[in-house]
Amino acid sequence: MQDARARTLVELIAAKRDGEHHPPADVERLVAALSSGELADYQMTAWLMAVFFRGLDEAETEALTTAMLRSGRVLDLSSVPGVKVDKHSTGGVGDKVSIALAPLVAACGVPVPMVSGRGLGHTGGTLDKLEAIPGFRTQLPAGDFARIVREVGCCMIGQTAEIAPADKRIYALRDVTATVECIPLIVASILSKKLAEGIDGLVLDVKVGRGAFMKSAADARKLAEALVRVATRAGKRAVALLTDMDTPLGVAVGNAVETREALDVLAGGGPADLVECTMALGAEMLVMGGKAADASSAREALARAVASGAAARTAERMIEAQGGDPRVVADRGRLEVAPVEVVVEAPRGGFVQRVDALEIGLAAVAMGAGRTRADQEVDHGVGLLVEARPGARVERGQALVRLLVRGVADARAVRDRVASAVTIGDAPPQRQLLLLDRIA
Amino acid sequence: MQDARARTLVELIAAKRDGEHHPPADVERLVAALSSGELADYQMTAWLMAVFFRGLDEAETEALTTAMLRSGRVLDLSSVPGVKVDKHSTGGVGDKVSIALAPLVAACGVPVPMVSGRGLGHTGGTLDKLEAIPGFRTQLPAGDFARIVREVGCCMIGQTAEIAPADKRIYALRDVTATVECIPLIVASILSKKLAEGIDGLVLDVKVGRGAFMKSAADARKLAEALVRVATRAGKRAVALLTDMDTPLGVAVGNAVETREALDVLAGGGPADLVECTMALGAEMLVMGGKAADASSAREALARAVASGAAARTAERMIEAQGGDPRVVADRGRLEVAPVEVVVEAPRGGFVQRVDALEIGLAAVAMGAGRTRADQEVDHGVGLLVEARPGARVERGQALVRLLVRGVADARAVRDRVASAVTIGDAPPQRQLLLLDRIA
Repeated sequence: MQDARARTLVELIAAKRDGEHHPPADVERLVAALSSGELADYQMTAWLMAVFFRGLDEAETEALTTAMLRSGRVLDLSSVPGVKVDKHSTGGVGDKVSIALAPLVAACGVPVPMVSGRGLGHTGGTLDKLEAIPGFRTQLPAGDFARIVREVGCCMIGQTAEIAPADKRIYALRDVTATVECIPLIVASILSKKLAEGIDGLVLDVKVGRGAFMKSAADARKLAEALVRVATRAGKRAVALLTDMDTPLGVAVGNAVETREALDVLAGGGPADLVECTMALGAEMLVMGGKAADASSAREALARAVASGAAARTAERMIEAQGGDPRVVADRGRLEVAPVEVVVEAPRGGFVQRVDALEIGLAAVAMGAGRTRADQEVDHGVGLLVEARPGARVERGQALVRLLVRGVADARAVRDRVASAVTIGDAPPQRQLLLLDRIA
Repeated sequence: MQDARARTLVELIAAKRDGEHHPPADVERLVAALSSGELADYQMTAWLMAVFFRGLDEAETEALTTAMLRSGRVLDLSSVPGVKVDKHSTGGVGDKVSIALAPLVAACGVPVPMVSGRGLGHTGGTLDKLEAIPGFRTQLPAGDFARIVREVGCCMIGQTAEIAPADKRIYALRDVTATVECIPLIVASILSKKLAEGIDGLVLDVKVGRGAFMKSAADARKLAEALVRVATRAGKRAVALLTDMDTPLGVAVGNAVETREALDVLAGGGPADLVECTMALGAEMLVMGGKAADASSAREALARAVASGAAARTAERMIEAQGGDPRVVADRGRLEVAPVEVVVEAPRGGFVQRVDALEIGLAAVAMGAGRTRADQEVDHGVGLLVEARPGARVERGQALVRLLVRGVADARAVRDRVASAVTIGDAPPQRQLLLLDRIA
């Protein structure tokens, strides 16, 4: 009599526990049962831990992605012509790429509908950085989002309650049950949100190193491969770049300072590593969007969009459409930065060996630029300017990092941490590449 | 700054996930946090699944046992003189041993404070069987329990809300998250409840085979060894017998029919396997309780207690003390059994090869003698008399099993299942031992 009946939800948990493959329908059933309340949170977390040990193959991961995607609504961008392409970064320190990239790529004719997140822990979030722009709104009705993408070419908003609510719930459970560090769960979480944007293609920036979620290139490559394969299975174009995150990206770490630096790139300036990362990702997006035949012609198109001011104008129009002050693009001094500068000096002369992105990121959180809990407010004005770059020759007493704080006292708590994040040695270090690999 | 703080509960889950050993204090912290609400059910189940994969060593299992034990109250049996010994069976089909064993051992001078459970799934429960005795109460105040053990020598009650509530909560979570089949969790669950009885020693009957929780002798041995070692670490005397549960124990399967059969043993009758199992466990209890020098003198003492009627008188006194009708001991027809008997006949002549305890147990559940959910009522009167024993020679048409039902129609649904549970072959099967091993 027991043999004839369908498998119970507990039996599905036991199946994964015992290393069985879930047919897609069973994965969908688990997610639907969580949404309906038939599966309790305490059952889902047992399944998640079983997945941590047993994994999910590509078919299962795709099924999880699709089930979480379908738990909410997919943004309707059918009114936007062209191949819509977004970029997703797995997160790091100083990663302000999106703010320059979206208008830059849009200016070259590829629509960029972008749903971003907030900072948590040592990694910053695009939404926090954008909100350093006076008036800028990251919560918009879905209709406005589609209209702005159509009219301006790009729009950058935060996740709404309608986007993949099952992912939101499952992520919250993973966060408190030590089941975050699991590649198939990471893949499904990222893709369920990105696919809900109504995109046709996705360029992934998988960060590697001390300041990244993935500390080793091997793990990052596994994640990148899984992301590309599952996105492809789900019918999307996808490519991933593996980029270095041992060192913070660019000079600025914080919110207003990072937005300022991203806008510098649109004005033809900005630190070399940030420019390179932006151009490499942008080139992938132009090729994917059918607006360039190859990477080198794509890079030329991107450079022209910067030089002509087209990219900056697209940024202005997007900011204005989202309620922000578009004058910040030309006049970046309008971005309010904390008034007191405290300099962390080199304790000795030599060559900078390393700037530890994790420690710099944690210092930024401690200064108030980030958060340790999702419900915390951030101070958009505070931040760090990490002038020391690996390979640079410094004299004793030279500025390594500038802390931008509200008062001198605020710098005291993080000064030692920041100082210890920069290592100085006698010989130049081995050169660290920014671009580590490309996975298509 | 993060480095200085104590480990969070999530970090404790991650530690077990990563195969770390928990110091006892961390296990205690997890259980205390569950009780206080600081640790959510969905976090506990993630930890339980991590334990399923990573295990708990003896020190961790002892810590979990102790923490769950201390979540409630330990029954105070200090007013009862002597070495108090209980028996615990891991459960099977037709296992009515406790009902004869407790008064028998008590009659020989070893106090037996026994807290039993209810049937669930294919395994029966002592409480359900006892409640077939008119008036018998299994829920008694703790003070009455101690008094009856002191005055009668034994008392058999159900688990109260005060006994190891953390175990109750954790067990309920395990039951719906596929984390039941995990030896250290089983050990901690059994021992936390048994140690709460205020006992000095514990004899374990670890069942092996189709009708048991442990299907293989190897797994059963692991469980038995873990039980004995952890109980010993916790300061208790402990010994385990491994006994066969491929075949139902005795003839009767149900509630009233099993109680009747157990009382037959106290009257000097009963099926040979049931008598042997009862005597083997009783001998261990007498030796452990200091009332016999060795197993053979213990068996003599037990046989004398049966022959003299002392065991039956102890059963009467216990039943009376617990509100039941003591006349059932001498007049077992007073136990109400379902009135209709349907015979399952041998489809061919030959030797009985096997009587599948699992199928018989599931048939009993389907007939209403057991339950599939903890909140179901049972019918104390229905049951099976399994007359076919492995090795027996049967003629075609001979009764293999008698179904005791309320109406003929009730037998139809289980008849085929029962018939297929009995295998008949041409040659006598290999003899199956009842007593498989002893672990001290």
